[in-house]
Amino acid sequence: MQTNEEYLVPSLGKCTVQSPLNLSKELGDGVFNYVRDDERVLMDASLRHYNELIENHTTPISFEKGGPKEKIYFDPTKTKVAIVTCGGLCPGLNNVIRGLVMQLYNRYGVQRIIGIRYGYEGFIPKYGHEIIDLVPDEIEEIHMHGGSILGSSRGPQDSGEIVDALERMNINILFTIGGDGTLRGAQKITEEITRRNLKIAVAAVPKTIDNDINLIEKSFGFETAFTIAADILRGAHNEAKGAYNGIALVKLMGRDSGFIAANAALAVQEVNLVLVPEMNFELYGPQGLLKWLRKRLEAKHHVLIAVAEGAGQHLFTEDTHDKDASGNVKYKDIGMYLRDKIREEFDHQSFPYSMKYIDPSYIIRSAPANANDSLFCNILAQNAVHAAMAGRTGFVVGYWNSRFTLLPIPMTVKDRKRISLEGVLWNNVIETTGQPKKFCN
Amino acid sequence: MQTNEEYLVPSLGKCTVQSPLNLSKELGDGVFNYVRDDERVLMDASLRHYNELIENHTTPISFEKGGPKEKIYFDPTKTKVAIVTCGGLCPGLNNVIRGLVMQLYNRYGVQRIIGIRYGYEGFIPKYGHEIIDLVPDEIEEIHMHGGSILGSSRGPQDSGEIVDALERMNINILFTIGGDGTLRGAQKITEEITRRNLKIAVAAVPKTIDNDINLIEKSFGFETAFTIAADILRGAHNEAKGAYNGIALVKLMGRDSGFIAANAALAVQEVNLVLVPEMNFELYGPQGLLKWLRKRLEAKHHVLIAVAEGAGQHLFTEDTHDKDASGNVKYKDIGMYLRDKIREEFDHQSFPYSMKYIDPSYIIRSAPANANDSLFCNILAQNAVHAAMAGRTGFVVGYWNSRFTLLPIPMTVKDRKRISLEGVLWNNVIETTGQPKKFCN
Amino acid sequence: MQTNEEYLVPSLGKCTVQSPLNLSKELGDGVFNYVRDDERVLMDASLRHYNELIENHTTPISFEKGGPKEKIYFDPTKTKVAIVTCGGLCPGLNNVIRGLVMQLYNRYGVQRIIGIRYGYEGFIPKYGHEIIDLVPDEIEEIHMHGGSILGSSRGPQDSGEIVDALERMNINILFTIGGDGTLRGAQKITEEITRRNLKIAVAAVPKTIDNDINLIEKSFGFETAFTIAADILRGAHNEAKGAYNGIALVKLMGRDSGFIAANAALAVQEVNLVLVPEMNFELYGPQGLLKWLRKRLEAKHHVLIAVAEGAGQHLFTEDTHDKDASGNVKYKDIGMYLRDKIREEFDHQSFPYSMKYIDPSYIIRSAPANANDSLFCNILAQNAVHAAMAGRTGFVVGYWNSRFTLLPIPMTVKDRKRISLEGVLWNNVIETTGQPKKFCN
Amino acid sequence: MQTNEEYLVPSLGKCTVQSPLNLSKELGDGVFNYVRDDERVLMDASLRHYNELIENHTTPISFEKGGPKEKIYFDPTKTKVAIVTCGGLCPGLNNVIRGLVMQLYNRYGVQRIIGIRYGYEGFIPKYGHEIIDLVPDEIEEIHMHGGSILGSSRGPQDSGEIVDALERMNINILFTIGGDGTLRGAQKITEEITRRNLKIAVAAVPKTIDNDINLIEKSFGFETAFTIAADILRGAHNEAKGAYNGIALVKLMGRDSGFIAANAALAVQEVNLVLVPEMNFELYGPQGLLKWLRKRLEAKHHVLIAVAEGAGQHLFTEDTHDKDASGNVKYKDIGMYLRDKIREEFDHQSFPYSMKYIDPSYIIRSAPANANDSLFCNILAQNAVHAAMAGRTGFVVGYWNSRFTLLPIPMTVKDRKRISLEGVLWNNVIETTGQPKKFCN
Repeated sequence: MQTNEEYLVPSLGKCTVQSPLNLSKELGDGVFNYVRDDERVLMDASLRHYNELIENHTTPISFEKGGPKEKIYFDPTKTKVAIVTCGGLCPGLNNVIRGLVMQLYNRYGVQRIIGIRYGYEGFIPKYGHEIIDLVPDEIEEIHMHGGSILGSSRGPQDSGEIVDALERMNINILFTIGGDGTLRGAQKITEEITRRNLKIAVAAVPKTIDNDINLIEKSFGFETAFTIAADILRGAHNEAKGAYNGIALVKLMGRDSGFIAANAALAVQEVNLVLVPEMNFELYGPQGLLKWLRKRLEAKHHVLIAVAEGAGQHLFTEDTHDKDASGNVKYKDIGMYLRDKIREEFDHQSFPYSMKYIDPSYIIRSAPANANDSLFCNILAQNAVHAAMAGRTGFVVGYWNSRFTLLPIPMTVKDRKRISLEGVLWNNVIETTGQPKKFCN
Repeated sequence: MQTNEEYLVPSLGKCTVQSPLNLSKELGDGVFNYVRDDERVLMDASLRHYNELIENHTTPISFEKGGPKEKIYFDPTKTKVAIVTCGGLCPGLNNVIRGLVMQLYNRYGVQRIIGIRYGYEGFIPKYGHEIIDLVPDEIEEIHMHGGSILGSSRGPQDSGEIVDALERMNINILFTIGGDGTLRGAQKITEEITRRNLKIAVAAVPKTIDNDINLIEKSFGFETAFTIAADILRGAHNEAKGAYNGIALVKLMGRDSGFIAANAALAVQEVNLVLVPEMNFELYGPQGLLKWLRKRLEAKHHVLIAVAEGAGQHLFTEDTHDKDASGNVKYKDIGMYLRDKIREEFDHQSFPYSMKYIDPSYIIRSAPANANDSLFCNILAQNAVHAAMAGRTGFVVGYWNSRFTLLPIPMTVKDRKRISLEGVLWNNVIETTGQPKKFCN
Repeated sequence: MQTNEEYLVPSLGKCTVQSPLNLSKELGDGVFNYVRDDERVLMDASLRHYNELIENHTTPISFEKGGPKEKIYFDPTKTKVAIVTCGGLCPGLNNVIRGLVMQLYNRYGVQRIIGIRYGYEGFIPKYGHEIIDLVPDEIEEIHMHGGSILGSSRGPQDSGEIVDALERMNINILFTIGGDGTLRGAQKITEEITRRNLKIAVAAVPKTIDNDINLIEKSFGFETAFTIAADILRGAHNEAKGAYNGIALVKLMGRDSGFIAANAALAVQEVNLVLVPEMNFELYGPQGLLKWLRKRLEAKHHVLIAVAEGAGQHLFTEDTHDKDASGNVKYKDIGMYLRDKIREEFDHQSFPYSMKYIDPSYIIRSAPANANDSLFCNILAQNAVHAAMAGRTGFVVGYWNSRFTLLPIPMTVKDRKRISLEGVLWNNVIETTGQPKKFCN
Repeated sequence: MQTNEEYLVPSLGKCTVQSPLNLSKELGDGVFNYVRDDERVLMDASLRHYNELIENHTTPISFEKGGPKEKIYFDPTKTKVAIVTCGGLCPGLNNVIRGLVMQLYNRYGVQRIIGIRYGYEGFIPKYGHEIIDLVPDEIEEIHMHGGSILGSSRGPQDSGEIVDALERMNINILFTIGGDGTLRGAQKITEEITRRNLKIAVAAVPKTIDNDINLIEKSFGFETAFTIAADILRGAHNEAKGAYNGIALVKLMGRDSGFIAANAALAVQEVNLVLVPEMNFELYGPQGLLKWLRKRLEAKHHVLIAVAEGAGQHLFTEDTHDKDASGNVKYKDIGMYLRDKIREEFDHQSFPYSMKYIDPSYIIRSAPANANDSLFCNILAQNAVHAAMAGRTGFVVGYWNSRFTLLPIPMTVKDRKRISLEGVLWNNVIETTGQPKKFCN
């Protein structure tokens, strides 16, 4: 079977240990089957693409399908595992931690599982963070609570020091749960491990509340996030209507991609303007946002705006961009900026209004996962364990065309997933809000 | 382009009216594109299937992709539309109604939209149900509430009488929202319309809280349903642990398929036994359920059971099966049955226990849709409108491989979607609950 | 100060130990004051009653005010405490347990606290239930969950055996959390302790989800209960309106008093009929309930009924009354009865209707306490600890005229608190539902 | 009966119209009774106070009891009513509006009810706000949503112009729903009406999310507010623990009184520091807050702080105080201030920490009322209607010693209700958080 090289997940070596899962290899016996190594999911499931492939005799791009393997790489009784959570909080972190531990301990019989505290910092001696033993009995109820029992931190740490720590602690598998920066870090760790010729698997469960990781349809916590955002927009709508020319301006998460703002707006159906990082917009001029805003208020006397935190970066000058501890560009805050510019303009025009600015970021990030995300976290964790036990390394657990997949880390950090302004999601936003397609000078 | 005949959606005729949507036909202009007639989604997106197709030179099965068409069949200014909701309540009904009205009225400019009351009954003169005019202003907030503002009813009505009513009221498009029985009814209506050579489109939005419609990945309201079920299981877990040898038995929806029970159990992670219609199980004997139950209680002193309403039908004798008004087989109630058999057995054994039986059916059915279902309902409604305006008829709006699709009604009622006992979902249930793979005599 | 004898709380003896709480005795120093023994709350706070007292030179009835005492009876370092929860679940049980432990351990320094499992059964050797050590660190998060970590059971146990167990375990204070039957049990235990001349305090935290304990304005869990009941009524309203002549019949808790049904109905404002144990009503005859029901359906085509479980007992014949394990009269189930009688009547009349019967009892009982109940549980627990440490025994912690009180057990079990059909609550129900004041033959 | 003059509610004149409510005057007939004019509730229900009164032959302070009167002042068929909501949003506003309309329309038969838009502004011609007709059918579901369907505004308006408008529109009763400033405005309106010798009743339903109105035990929306605040604190706790030396700082409402912060902290039980306007605290010095904070972090590595917006005003210099549109002193923002001072200090000390600042004000204010507040709003509204129909004017509906009361406006605005630092609430806070009693230099 031909496959596009760059989509192949690296492997530590040949799998020779019989899986303890006791599954089946044949269909029809009523028992779940092991997944064969050549099971893959097509990237593009459209008929048009299929026909093009036929015509051009091209190999389609496909992703490895997740699932339990009959032969595994690590001997469970001799395996030691570390789990770390990095970056900002996201609903579902504790579900993933719990899912990993339960799967490792109860299904595979891996009994030595440790939790690294406060992100990658937890590996670095100078911080002095202690580790935690993770045992099923003690973590049974953590999925009901938000946050991460391991704690987290932002920013990279030296991959050499991390691998030193992995060696020192005799870790065989590292599960790292985090976003873009964390994945890049995981890739460096994988490379360092390879360089040292160690047999340590690095498995990543991608965490992005913004749902913006490349080649991954949906990330855990995202649904919970836009669900809570929708509730908050509903309240903000009350605030907007509760005052004459009431402006409710809600800043939502979304550094590079506006999925939360777009989805929440569609769930609520009462947002009048959605601003996302993917679009350009001008504030001033006859077709500018502020002109539109005034017209809207004159007509309806209230407006509800959802703005993704990364929107409108073009409004700031280049040199004001610096980076935060994780190396992300530290955007100027569009929320506050917009609030102040609107105030400035309407005060100048002596136009009466009432501004309510709402920033629910931490309220959303710290919430427990909803039922669907809980379910999803659990299966992500199971697939991460299956793959890591089978010696896969430097990989990310994904979801594509309704199936769980495995991707090499580099493919997932090459780019961000973004809202296509020509796509159906954004078209729905435009139609639901009734906002203009463009705000130009 | 070759396509499998039976998956083609019927059409009323050639589309000659320019769509009022004002979308684009080319990529890259930043405006959403009309969907071409030949855009289709592959049924099987696995690489293995792809390779088989190549090898065998077979045409793959594919489904029409939903979306707005450049040329439509009906002239919006002359179009009159009817909407009807049938069968039991399901979260999201009002969202779908609202979505249809908003899309028809605001995007296409169709201003004559009526609501048929109390399901197909509303068409039949002898019931005397009045119709309702559906206007955006008056239905703006209905999506925040559960139920259906149109009301519903179960059971079929004469398709001849229904088409009589459609003719009498000069309806051009009928949107019918309902389950298996409703879809069969819609198919009969479509056939009667064809017989009479009328130009009336019949569009179905499939409603099944059980998520069991064939070839449709997910149906609206299902996620809300298992979310609430999960909450109820959490409480039931407290009841089970709150008494010595406490048994909490929760009957959940699921006549033919146990998706709600399985998903809710996975979301909660504390259910000890899930019983679904797809599995057989015996109560008595050394490997029977009751023996297992006693052992479980002796070991842990509590047990939480989720049983789908359609499970264990094999335990009842054939002749006790009759049908309800909708023609569904009226199952004996496994919940009550199980409760009574457990009581009987343990009373007989003088084994102490405390039984709590919980049947939350109506509480779940009558809830408002959660954020994700709200979003989903809206897009389903939009796609139903796009397709119906383009003269598609006898079709169901579906969802497959993460895309919205259109299917001919007959393909969706040929069979039920069921949990595969060899699939990953059921394997997860088995692993999470720790329940035996089989209960035999 | 003169006080009505029967309202005095018994005491184990003179308090000679200095409280470790380090509070103040004087106003104005910014530190909370110890409560003096003569601080009491008037039963009747109306001016009219005041004037009558003046005129008749009568001593007003008053209740002891709860709070910390300067001198206490038990030496914290030598005190051992037992906690037991009895009867059905009620939101807030874990909050009370946690509140007791935290107050005893953190404020008073009592470190030996044990939990008795499964109600009074836990004292009786033949059941073999183990005890639990209650330590702050391990119970820190229990208040976020419903149920009782101790478990519970119904029914009385021999008070002699219970006191044997208390002696054997060297318990100094028993905290018992339960309803009417549990309080009667606590009184018997108190009497047995007195008979044996032991120095063991018995403190009761009254638990009645029905809010029906005499001389106590509000009991923990009640607000949470009617809050959830209100949500369920809201859904039931959707069910009622979702079908032609839809009848939604919701059975709520309330054996002797209909407070939950009445309060939930007032919170929701859409219930059309509330039936409570305090009222009589006839089903048949021209002024009967069934006649009214038919008229209501003919006029509005839907009806929402909330019935308290203890309503309509007069409809059953005397001899069918037996008692449950707790000695409560085991009422015939009015919910099912009413459902069947309505069906019978309307089927007989060939009157079309759709019946939805909802019994959410366990769903409500097993829920976690809401914020206000959490707060309330905590203060109840604190007051129970203050009083018990001060050697008060045979008492119940109450709430009256917005203050926390202490009552001798016998006064609280003499009678039930009931809705007055002449009172403002019932008048509000009548006005809100629009139901007739009477249903007679 | 003697009564303290200043607690008497003013009256427009003799009541001669028979109430249409059809209630009873005698006990025992099973029908709710009219309330007599001399029914009053004692302010102080303690036995100690009672004995002092007896000793000193003093008249006790008492408040008029709310309720329906047999004779009323206004003839319902000729009565026209206006309703206005003022100040910031508060959960329950729509419940009160609905309650007023339903009671007026359905019980008293008053059919002309108008809503004034955007607070007192709605009376003033220059703003040009239109009025709304309030009819039961159209407002039936408003209580399910937060906000105010009438809208609101802050700040006083000329009472002369308001009375001009009342005269012009032939209003007989004005219901005004608002806080301290609104009540002062209502008093001025009442006085202007008296001056002009008009027969217009002014009835106030007090709105203070802070629960700080004098002589009123509990105000609507307050419980909902601290309930949501408790949820937010729970999430903030996750944020605090999610980072090394994590500081979660939550600013809650409470300009003059810290009831929301205190109650929410007690409901959650995990807050480590509560700062309220009633207390003084110093930031610097060996006993200062910052020193304590560092020690706390060194010991536990996380801290959760709830600060009421009006706390720490003494930290700002006098001259920075200006007033907002409502005439309230516009406090410097303690939240931001504290956040910046902590950052400054720990940055200076090179002490690692992670700060999360959360300001959920609008999220709380715009929420719908919970069940208990819904109930409460309804009864407040009913009592306001009863009293106004009976010609009472210049009054506030209150709640005291578990009864609904009527108070003359001036008594309620003389002072604020505040947390007593010597009282049981604050002592509970101190004990639950474990925070020091004082932070001094």
